[in-house]
Amino acid sequence: MANEKIPYKIYLTEEEMPKSWYNVRADMKNKPAPLLNPGTLQPMGFEDLRGVFCDELIRQELDNDTAYFPIPEEIRSFYKMYRPSPLVRAYCLEEKLQTPAKIYYKFEGNNTSGSHKLNSAIAQAYYAKEQGLKGVTTETGAGQWGTALSMACGYLGLDCKVYMVKCSYEQKPFRREVMRTYGASVTPSPSESTAVGRKILAEHPGTTGSLGCAISEAVEVATTTPGYRYVLGSVLNQVLLHQSVIGLETKAALDKYGVVPDIIIGCAGGGSNLGGLISPFMGQELRGEAKYRFIAVEPASCPSLTRGRYAYDFCDTGMVCPLAKMYTLGSNFIPSANHAGGLRYHGMSSILSQLYHDGYMEARSVEQTSVFEAAELFARVEGILPAPESSHAIRVAIDEAMKCKETGEEKTIVFGLTGTGYFDLVAYQKFHDGEMVDVIPTDAELEESFAQLPPQPETL
Amino acid sequence: MANEKIPYKIYLTEEEMPKSWYNVRADMKNKPAPLLNPGTLQPMGFEDLRGVFCDELIRQELDNDTAYFPIPEEIRSFYKMYRPSPLVRAYCLEEKLQTPAKIYYKFEGNNTSGSHKLNSAIAQAYYAKEQGLKGVTTETGAGQWGTALSMACGYLGLDCKVYMVKCSYEQKPFRREVMRTYGASVTPSPSESTAVGRKILAEHPGTTGSLGCAISEAVEVATTTPGYRYVLGSVLNQVLLHQSVIGLETKAALDKYGVVPDIIIGCAGGGSNLGGLISPFMGQELRGEAKYRFIAVEPASCPSLTRGRYAYDFCDTGMVCPLAKMYTLGSNFIPSANHAGGLRYHGMSSILSQLYHDGYMEARSVEQTSVFEAAELFARVEGILPAPESSHAIRVAIDEAMKCKETGEEKTIVFGLTGTGYFDLVAYQKFHDGEMVDVIPTDAELEESFAQLPPQPETL
Repeated sequence: MANEKIPYKIYLTEEEMPKSWYNVRADMKNKPAPLLNPGTLQPMGFEDLRGVFCDELIRQELDNDTAYFPIPEEIRSFYKMYRPSPLVRAYCLEEKLQTPAKIYYKFEGNNTSGSHKLNSAIAQAYYAKEQGLKGVTTETGAGQWGTALSMACGYLGLDCKVYMVKCSYEQKPFRREVMRTYGASVTPSPSESTAVGRKILAEHPGTTGSLGCAISEAVEVATTTPGYRYVLGSVLNQVLLHQSVIGLETKAALDKYGVVPDIIIGCAGGGSNLGGLISPFMGQELRGEAKYRFIAVEPASCPSLTRGRYAYDFCDTGMVCPLAKMYTLGSNFIPSANHAGGLRYHGMSSILSQLYHDGYMEARSVEQTSVFEAAELFARVEGILPAPESSHAIRVAIDEAMKCKETGEEKTIVFGLTGTGYFDLVAYQKFHDGEMVDVIPTDAELEESFAQLPPQPETL
Repeated sequence: MANEKIPYKIYLTEEEMPKSWYNVRADMKNKPAPLLNPGTLQPMGFEDLRGVFCDELIRQELDNDTAYFPIPEEIRSFYKMYRPSPLVRAYCLEEKLQTPAKIYYKFEGNNTSGSHKLNSAIAQAYYAKEQGLKGVTTETGAGQWGTALSMACGYLGLDCKVYMVKCSYEQKPFRREVMRTYGASVTPSPSESTAVGRKILAEHPGTTGSLGCAISEAVEVATTTPGYRYVLGSVLNQVLLHQSVIGLETKAALDKYGVVPDIIIGCAGGGSNLGGLISPFMGQELRGEAKYRFIAVEPASCPSLTRGRYAYDFCDTGMVCPLAKMYTLGSNFIPSANHAGGLRYHGMSSILSQLYHDGYMEARSVEQTSVFEAAELFARVEGILPAPESSHAIRVAIDEAMKCKETGEEKTIVFGLTGTGYFDLVAYQKFHDGEMVDVIPTDAELEESFAQLPPQPETL
């Protein structure tokens, strides 16, 4: 079918949808470093993690060898409600840019959570239910993950307690309301409902909260309430495993038309979308079957890959979680206010960090004003209002397409469009009104943050 | 393919997408009554309407005989960006209701305008551009139409001036911001920018505006600014023609699997979605080829079909527009505050009014609290947060499915899911907080409104 006219949108049939997730760790020579107990600095095993996570999810988290995990039937049924997501040929964008490049994007925003987060939310909720649990706890910042988890729990009849960073809770009442529609309880964090919340409120009255604080509250509730576990929407190996459905569908859709990408681009916060998108392609590269350029795009205000340290660090600012080896800006690093809430995490998935460290991936940081310029251009010609996070990938896809215009190369560019910006219009308004600013951390600020990294284990 | 397993979502291929719109008037024995000049009470012809509407759109408006209008290539390309929309088999809803009924919905919300309005917006903008016009004007209440038109104009490089009912402008800043993203100018109505706006502001200082007032401003600007015309998102024959793409796709998708619906349900404000959805099925019925039940669903607070008069009335509250014969509550009727802004129009499409009058269609009115109960149930099991307007159709689809449960009948129900509720979360919040009220006009209120209907032409 290589010469067949490629449609605007490629949809797989239900039969063509992936039946297993792909675990890229199985093909990595250098495996991602294990999670460490922050007290003993020893690797954490199954039993160490059982109080926090669901059993099956721990197995997935720790398994560096199994290449394919069958997707349970009930999850596949749920996927059919909103998947396959379309792989879109950006004919209109190509025309607008007058580039010889061929641009595709995998659009994950056509569901009520508005992003790819639902792919892992349903998996995590499913395993919690299978284990006979009553419910799960989590934190949410921008709100996509909390919404996705609420939807998954609402569908399965599982209780869902979301700790939402207080300033988001107040600034994004609509996100909160979507979660309530799906039956979740949403608590602004820090709250009086946990010991850690009360401690933080006593020390910092009037604080508007942080993701790290919300994580600490959600973990406390999960570990102290019988029948509950904690779930997380990014960073973890298990999340990248579930999100491989994005890359598997993308690859199947391209294969159907005989298209081989040259460049694969994704925005990177904790790494859930980028990791999922590139996994099967990276697997080919790791097995020596193909060669691609992979580009991770991060905000200049929170540049963990491009300016961070590759070191063991806490996953949360409250420093109660395990240590993970990753590119990090330091768990105390507070990025300047920017409008891509999903990309404000201080660290990066251990898998992606290892791949980047081993030279399999490039990284680029971009400033938010140029990101919104790309977002607006994209919205006008492709008809989709993109999320600020996704627009980081759009920015670099356009940049690469413009390079092709200069050189005349007909490269094939694939990028991940993780979601829609319907709940991010305050950001668009600031952009339209010329009030958007770009703030980049100074070297001195980063050095100060790096100085607070925990002691590094000697042998790892 | 009749016995093939029906997928969760049926997508047509690009080749299967409609190449022509279908004009149901061609098969109607009793044609919809013509628009009348409010001064002379004479039918308005091509020349009478040229100052307000684009030439080609007037031709479509007046043509009661041509059954198929080819869709221009540029519009078909635009459609391919967000169409075909999926016809979804509501397996999860059926399971939840434990009904033998088979439920399908045609989902039009997967585009940034969030509704089906884009189908006509691109057509109207296209013909305006073809005519060499500089731009178009319109009004918007809830905001879907304004957003859709902004997207279409942004794509074609046409100027777009939107008059947005002032209370919506203030309560829905995000809608406004989406329109700005697409380059539209958005003015709160009434405004100082028009004579009619200044007059209204002088008479009613502090008014929060109305759709009728916004129409009057948009028409004034269109008729007094060289190179501009006025466009409208519902009610008109031309709009139902463009929206027939919904029904044509639905029918093609059902035909592909040998499915014949028993009941077809749509929400009805001005009639654009319902008219588009049912057109090809109604055509079959009018030609004696098939028999269906068609149900129009309207809010109990604005019950034009179920409690209105079939009479000539003004299309706007400012009484500057032509008279249309339709089921109407009177152009001065102000429905109580309800959260389905798209269903608050006092009248109904002339085509649908005639079909209803001739007994081809049923109508039902529902109260908004029961509508939101249906909306929340639907959101939880089908994963889509529906618009309040669309949820009227969901309510009746569920009611019909529950009747099947009682009788054991395996009826096939198809309904139109016009859009998503991402910008309607204030309404969901009121519902969750138990603050939603149902207000139904009294007979006396309606009689008072009917008393102000204009003089009726004798011979029509």
